[in-house]
Amino acid sequence: MTKINDNYLKLPGSYLFSTVAKKISAFQEANPDKPVIKMSIGDVTRPLVPAVIDAMHKAVDEMAAAETFRGYGPEQGYDFLRNAIVKYDYASRGIELEADEVFVSDGAKSDCGNIGDIFSVDNKVAVCDPVYPVYVDTNAMAGRAGDYIDEHWSNLYYMPCLAENGFMPQLPTEKVDIIYLCFPNNPTGVAATKEQLKPWIDYARENKAVILYDSAYEAFITNPDVPHSIYELEGAKEVAIEFRSFSKTAGFTGTRCAYTIVPHELKVNGTELNGLWNRRQCTKFNGVPYIIQRAAEAVYSPEGQKQTKENVAYYLNNASIIRNALTDIGLEVYGGENAPYIWAKTPDNMGSWEFFDKILNETAVGTTPGAGFGPSGEGYVRLTAFSSKENTEAAMERIKKLL
Amino acid sequence: MTKINDNYLKLPGSYLFSTVAKKISAFQEANPDKPVIKMSIGDVTRPLVPAVIDAMHKAVDEMAAAETFRGYGPEQGYDFLRNAIVKYDYASRGIELEADEVFVSDGAKSDCGNIGDIFSVDNKVAVCDPVYPVYVDTNAMAGRAGDYIDEHWSNLYYMPCLAENGFMPQLPTEKVDIIYLCFPNNPTGVAATKEQLKPWIDYARENKAVILYDSAYEAFITNPDVPHSIYELEGAKEVAIEFRSFSKTAGFTGTRCAYTIVPHELKVNGTELNGLWNRRQCTKFNGVPYIIQRAAEAVYSPEGQKQTKENVAYYLNNASIIRNALTDIGLEVYGGENAPYIWAKTPDNMGSWEFFDKILNETAVGTTPGAGFGPSGEGYVRLTAFSSKENTEAAMERIKKLL
Repeated sequence: MTKINDNYLKLPGSYLFSTVAKKISAFQEANPDKPVIKMSIGDVTRPLVPAVIDAMHKAVDEMAAAETFRGYGPEQGYDFLRNAIVKYDYASRGIELEADEVFVSDGAKSDCGNIGDIFSVDNKVAVCDPVYPVYVDTNAMAGRAGDYIDEHWSNLYYMPCLAENGFMPQLPTEKVDIIYLCFPNNPTGVAATKEQLKPWIDYARENKAVILYDSAYEAFITNPDVPHSIYELEGAKEVAIEFRSFSKTAGFTGTRCAYTIVPHELKVNGTELNGLWNRRQCTKFNGVPYIIQRAAEAVYSPEGQKQTKENVAYYLNNASIIRNALTDIGLEVYGGENAPYIWAKTPDNMGSWEFFDKILNETAVGTTPGAGFGPSGEGYVRLTAFSSKENTEAAMERIKKLL
Repeated sequence: MTKINDNYLKLPGSYLFSTVAKKISAFQEANPDKPVIKMSIGDVTRPLVPAVIDAMHKAVDEMAAAETFRGYGPEQGYDFLRNAIVKYDYASRGIELEADEVFVSDGAKSDCGNIGDIFSVDNKVAVCDPVYPVYVDTNAMAGRAGDYIDEHWSNLYYMPCLAENGFMPQLPTEKVDIIYLCFPNNPTGVAATKEQLKPWIDYARENKAVILYDSAYEAFITNPDVPHSIYELEGAKEVAIEFRSFSKTAGFTGTRCAYTIVPHELKVNGTELNGLWNRRQCTKFNGVPYIIQRAAEAVYSPEGQKQTKENVAYYLNNASIIRNALTDIGLEVYGGENAPYIWAKTPDNMGSWEFFDKILNETAVGTTPGAGFGPSGEGYVRLTAFSSKENTEAAMERIKKLL
């Protein structure tokens, strides 16, 4: 008789963003005259930039002629894209990488989720709290998280990120094997400096732990002390895998392209994780569409860089509008300076789902309740800077009247 | 200390098609004056059809304007595509499906590989021999296959498909929990009739087993007695998941779109596998690019149907050329009538890697050695019908001179 993976049955409720989306939809259906402004899911709204559009039209035309048609590509991505990533995202910051340390994929979510394949179930995993739910849920699915009791997974090591510690996780006080870090952070919007990251490299080297470093939001960094890649820190290649995405950098949320760096220097008991991930991708993945890889390559052209940076600046301006508005009405506000996320304390210690409901029902603005990101997210809501400027301003006007 | 998934270390050699590709590349480098005709990997060569190209240009333009831009889509696929699949691939054959039983993905390889996530490690898995390596390797990675000893995985149940049984697997003589079936078959090219499939439905119902049915090649079926979907058989919805792809149907090998059907009726101990797979996809996948889903939708338009069917007919004509040529020189030949694959017995009981090398080195034609698909593939090579007609004819001329 077939046996299912029982770990799936331990997962509480449904995926956070689905729940939020359903609540917003239900409100919208009941209130068709009050158009909801969504500052909930981290989805961009600016169209793809002209350089990317041009590259895609050209690639589509290549697919129309036998001489230029592309069938199966390399599972790890075409060299033209891997080389561009090495040159523009790493060499430009003094980081040397080989092209075969870059694995192009359909999304950082896929990679963050699938990376667990190459690790034993028998690893102690540390996650920040609050945290991007994918890290937790995928470990729960794999059986690495234990049981879900009182809003905590019994086998995970939680690192609370609270106002009192500047939303920076503290080094584990017990031995852990795999550490998820995300900077600039989702959901708190806080970025880590080199000085703040260095102890993690030291910890990982001493304890032979692996850091899974999500830098999907690096394009939003404005502070020169904040590294864009963990490999800007010495020794990081020996201990860290880095996840990057074009989703927020270039508006690819519906276009789907990302990449993961697995350095050759990263070894566990002499085994290169690069080889394991390569095997995983060759066996369970067939590469990103050629057209999409050409789109991603165009992000690195001079026009692509200029155009995508304008969009990032546009969103950062929205972040500033949100920060200012919420500060004006007396909320404690974090993030939004090196990240597209603003993390706001609820007024009067209101529960985060309660505040989410209140904002939605009274102002028709969608946010994400902090508790959805983990127990320490209780008492906060997350707002994203990805709406249009007009909608961002309109949403802030509505929220100002709420309090 | 981090622990890796040791199952990866049990995997022999590298992925079959990578090895074949490397051997072909090495030959080509050493013999630049002898252009290799590749009849090895199942990659198409005809360009995308005009209906698909037009749909992609239109979708690219939509991505260029804020009013029509698409960000994150549903992880399971857009309704426009799910509904088209239900209507044209299933309702047209009398099969009723709900749109939420369809999960659009980036490839049947991904889905065949990832589906294991929702099953316990503790399942007895049956595979045909020879077999598409992804089924075996992904189960090995998950720890379901045991150890690799004498070219066999100790915990897998092998179902030999040999000339003496018409390359049809025989029902397991012991209880198995998960059964991979692929018809029309890769690599043998043999198709199964309803009568041949019925006992499998009965077996699965009696033994509460799940059938993972790969019908990626259904577009090549010419025999009216051969079902295109396993759901053409009564009761199949209770026991089977079906994998489909646009790769061979519409030349999407480099465009990347496929789908998997998980019927609501398919339950294990009362749990719907549909819900588990939905959770898996929502947590570890972020959907197929909007542009690519519009491309797939266009396959179902009247022009798209006409144009893609012309390409399938073109490849089937190549298959016929290969069958005739190899038969003429006295080889035993199977498949190629309802499938793009031809399975040819090596002459004089030559080993399949030896015959592969001989064909490559003496005629500059790439094939795939049968032994790469499993122990019972020894003594065969696989040829694919996906080259141009000219190359197919040229390759056959060369091989005719070989023997």
